[in-house]
Amino acid sequence: MTKRSAETLTDAETITRTEGNAASPKGFRAAGIHSGVKREKPDLALLVSEVPASAAGVFTTNKVKAAPVRYTQRAIAPGRAQAIVVNSGNANACTGEPGLADAAEMARIAGEALGLGAELVLVASTGVIGVPLPMDAIRRGIPRAALDLSAGGGSAAAEAIRTTDSFPKTCAVLLEIDGVEVTIGGMAKGAGMIHPNLATTLCFLTTDAALPPAVLRLALTRAVAESFNSITVDGDTSTNDTVLVLANGRAGGPPITNGESLSRFTAGLTAVASELARMVVRDGEGATKLVSIAVDGAVSPGEAHQAAMTVANSLLVKTALHGGEPNWGRILAALGRSGVEMAEKTTDVFFGELAVVRGGLGLPGVWDAAAAALEEKEIAIRIRLGVGTGAARVWTCDLSEEYVRINGSYTT
Amino acid sequence: MTKRSAETLTDAETITRTEGNAASPKGFRAAGIHSGVKREKPDLALLVSEVPASAAGVFTTNKVKAAPVRYTQRAIAPGRAQAIVVNSGNANACTGEPGLADAAEMARIAGEALGLGAELVLVASTGVIGVPLPMDAIRRGIPRAALDLSAGGGSAAAEAIRTTDSFPKTCAVLLEIDGVEVTIGGMAKGAGMIHPNLATTLCFLTTDAALPPAVLRLALTRAVAESFNSITVDGDTSTNDTVLVLANGRAGGPPITNGESLSRFTAGLTAVASELARMVVRDGEGATKLVSIAVDGAVSPGEAHQAAMTVANSLLVKTALHGGEPNWGRILAALGRSGVEMAEKTTDVFFGELAVVRGGLGLPGVWDAAAAALEEKEIAIRIRLGVGTGAARVWTCDLSEEYVRINGSYTT
Repeated sequence: MTKRSAETLTDAETITRTEGNAASPKGFRAAGIHSGVKREKPDLALLVSEVPASAAGVFTTNKVKAAPVRYTQRAIAPGRAQAIVVNSGNANACTGEPGLADAAEMARIAGEALGLGAELVLVASTGVIGVPLPMDAIRRGIPRAALDLSAGGGSAAAEAIRTTDSFPKTCAVLLEIDGVEVTIGGMAKGAGMIHPNLATTLCFLTTDAALPPAVLRLALTRAVAESFNSITVDGDTSTNDTVLVLANGRAGGPPITNGESLSRFTAGLTAVASELARMVVRDGEGATKLVSIAVDGAVSPGEAHQAAMTVANSLLVKTALHGGEPNWGRILAALGRSGVEMAEKTTDVFFGELAVVRGGLGLPGVWDAAAAALEEKEIAIRIRLGVGTGAARVWTCDLSEEYVRINGSYTT
Repeated sequence: MTKRSAETLTDAETITRTEGNAASPKGFRAAGIHSGVKREKPDLALLVSEVPASAAGVFTTNKVKAAPVRYTQRAIAPGRAQAIVVNSGNANACTGEPGLADAAEMARIAGEALGLGAELVLVASTGVIGVPLPMDAIRRGIPRAALDLSAGGGSAAAEAIRTTDSFPKTCAVLLEIDGVEVTIGGMAKGAGMIHPNLATTLCFLTTDAALPPAVLRLALTRAVAESFNSITVDGDTSTNDTVLVLANGRAGGPPITNGESLSRFTAGLTAVASELARMVVRDGEGATKLVSIAVDGAVSPGEAHQAAMTVANSLLVKTALHGGEPNWGRILAALGRSGVEMAEKTTDVFFGELAVVRGGLGLPGVWDAAAAALEEKEIAIRIRLGVGTGAARVWTCDLSEEYVRINGSYTT
């Protein structure tokens, strides 16, 4: 099913990237169809395990939470699920009590179509805010999607969760844990940020490894910290952001509970989540460059993350990256207002391998080389704060005129 | 000197706006000349009181502070000053110890040219970051500017502090305090935010009222809270932001220390600072609309301010305002991530007088009227959180493609 490639995603050379997706792990099937929420494009996805699976989720911290987020937060609390139903085209957000009833009905219909209890079905939505979900389309669509389920349906499912994404986002890895080959797969949607009336980053991860729910939750939290919580396109946080993971144990290995096997599983899950998160940034609306911002020498990992995110979200930095302007002063100014402990005289900045700032002062004669470094499609900015040992890395994209055009005139 | 207009700036009908500037209050003179920091345009301003004045300042909270900020923070500590020297074209920021020596030399040269002790001279700079100040130009320029000082020189000074500003910014008001006519004037520069390698909002306020330094500091803090701390164009904070006020007492009234006379003075100072701050927003790079965001019903004034600022800085809100899209979902999403206490079901949103959202739900049939409200050049958005009594108002502008163009390709 999954074609191996020589490329490895992380330093752990035994994690092998494949061309798989969320249906690649053993015992998963998926489908993606057009139900009529959108006019023409696929808009309804199902992802189903052949047996009940351990389940964990991470949700938006926005206080304005869409109905499917509130529904799924409750449904996932016991740590078990067997299916995920997702629609695109309508976020079912800011829809009040009727919206919550619609989310529950989506789960019930999917459960009936799949022969499962509704309590084993999780729900997610993405699209227009403030408009009631067209339940007629959903009611007709779910049974059709259930008939379409297959082990090869992961790509169709990834298509069906797109909104403004310019490409579908899937990824999988193979790794050996306790002598057993384990697959971790996933799909995501998101063009970097919430879109006009559309919204959201969604990510659905699957694995045939066996983990108790509490352990799976721990692994997911770590994976999200280094992936979806380390990317930013515009600093906005959606009403619908959701990351879910199902672990069904069909690979046949013993339950992963701690130690080296948990470390390896977490590395694999992080690799998949990071790859999907970078795809989201690369697909940022109007983005032309993928930029990593690595900060070390902060007083804590948290402050390193905060400093990196402040630089990554600075409009002045992002427009400079777009224009290829090596304005290191903007980076220093962003660091200075980030709220973290820092001092000009201990701060160094590198563009790739090129030192641009040492001790808070620009190095003479590097402007042209620095400008050339910013011509690349992938840019690595490294910042040394020199006040501690905390480190973090985040990803962002440049800000182009196209971003403004897309977001200024979406519905008209 | 100052031509009165019928327009009044605040509800206090006895505060009268005039066409004045920072040299309008009695006993002030100003000058603005070309010294050679910039190639052709005016780049050096002097603002001088005929007697030592009470002085107070508010400075950037950025940890990366330009040399003139660090110099002036120390110089103003005793609360007395008689002159302010300002250059544009070079921020003297990220310039290390030599930069600090240059700032001190600017003050010393100005003191000599004016026959004052250097300790009575305050310094500010704005322009390119990371490049040493061209001291030859400054040394030659200051004595020439001193020869040019006049009571009519306020406009020339306002010209000389511009960087990317598309128009000079001056303002003055007249009001009666304790039976004496008092003038409060000011000038500012700033095109909404720090610019590429250029930087900064600068504002210099003057008055012929008499106030002890501690009282003047109090009045300035309040005025800045409702003006320069309540505007945002892009959320970036400069290395050079500075607001200074001099009060020389030449109007002849008794010292203002508390009670009704202090309230009146503070209202006047706030009126001038607010008007200058709104000019800065209106001049935001690429801005086409001035937008006020008023939040009430928050649990505290601080949370109201935080909520308003989060909405005001949301790229999605700002691009929607530019495109004339009444996407109230973006406003709710921004409120939800602002960190303040709120709930969808108690939240109302108005565009001008038009109710758009009630209890977290969009009102049916208002889309066209809402879109029409966003066609205006000045837009008032009002948000009721319904969870307390805290209120605040901030100003912002829309985000246009032009902003990206200006900031992406400044130096090339």
